Amino acid sequence: MKLLEDTIREKGIVKEGNVLKVDSFLNHQMDIKLFNEMGKEFKRLFADKEITKILTIEASGIGIACVAAQYFDVPVVFAKKAQSINIDGDVYSTSITSFTHKREYQVIVSKKYLLPEDKVLIIDDFLANGCALNGLTELVEDAGASVEGIGIAIEKGFQDGGRIIRDKGYDLHSLAIVESMDAATGEIKFSQEA
Amino acid sequence: MKLLEDTIREKGIVKEGNVLKVDSFLNHQMDIKLFNEMGKEFKRLFADKEITKILTIEASGIGIACVAAQYFDVPVVFAKKAQSINIDGDVYSTSITSFTHKREYQVIVSKKYLLPEDKVLIIDDFLANGCALNGLTELVEDAGASVEGIGIAIEKGFQDGGRIIRDKGYDLHSLAIVESMDAATGEIKFSQEA
Repeated sequence: MKLLEDTIREKGIVKEGNVLKVDSFLNHQMDIKLFNEMGKEFKRLFADKEITKILTIEASGIGIACVAAQYFDVPVVFAKKAQSINIDGDVYSTSITSFTHKREYQVIVSKKYLLPEDKVLIIDDFLANGCALNGLTELVEDAGASVEGIGIAIEKGFQDGGRIIRDKGYDLHSLAIVESMDAATGEIKFSQEA
Repeated sequence: MKLLEDTIREKGIVKEGNVLKVDSFLNHQMDIKLFNEMGKEFKRLFADKEITKILTIEASGIGIACVAAQYFDVPVVFAKKAQSINIDGDVYSTSITSFTHKREYQVIVSKKYLLPEDKVLIIDDFLANGCALNGLTELVEDAGASVEGIGIAIEKGFQDGGRIIRDKGYDLHSLAIVESMDAATGEIKFSQEA
């Protein structure tokens, strides 16, 4: 998606260790006009899918998911990190290892909000090693629901997550795929989906 | 706001200890159509204010803030709870005591995203004892920015937060103010803003 790639080139900051900072428009300060364009693009990419629910994970997936949900006319459910539990009754639970924070945490979704008949679109801001996405797909499958698609804002194409998720047969689309980036020059190269 | 009051009456669950569960439409599963109506109502309430930025706090304020931001045409910044730090450089920081989780935590906002010239609308899902809001207003004032208004979805009118915040002179509007609720009967009474 050209607008997102242009915004990453203009406002993203490349740091040593393959870190891409996009906190000026995506995951701390949030550009809602951009989110709207991303929402429209997700709708275009998944136009042939019947979606009943969007699933994301706190915190930085929530804004993108909520704005995108307007184009699908469905509710959003966000998976909660375990220390923020304030939930009735039974939950689906899985463990996710955070690349950013280098620790493992539990994420949960109330069983009331993922039903066997749900056709789920998973939306998240980043895909790198795929741990968060693996956790989210596991929650959906634990519920007996189906993963109809996965929409990601920025995929780090040089990490394994995208390949692993696509190899499992999921219909994954990333709006921008970073092929390589250079902390010294700040240069970012994008690749297109195969 | 009648639609929100009706939704709380229909879908909210009153628990012992003055707990109101609204996780079916507000803070776990999120009703985006309702969020849009709430966003329009915030715009109506703060129509006379010049707003440059909406500030909220992770996680459950983010969805409401992002949908509302479309009516103000401004970016959203969310304050991060301290363990999810992945932020460059200097931050404004404050301490918040959580009523729900009965613990204290640090919240931060990057200094890059709260500027002295910012005219801030704070949006959050709940107002009870006011600790989270006090923290957010402190972050804005630390930045030398101004709090132009505060928009809350649900205020627990029988707790002190609303009075404390209004007494400080803030322009606070809550879309639904719960005057009392009864865990035995499930009855919820609303009051109007004075």
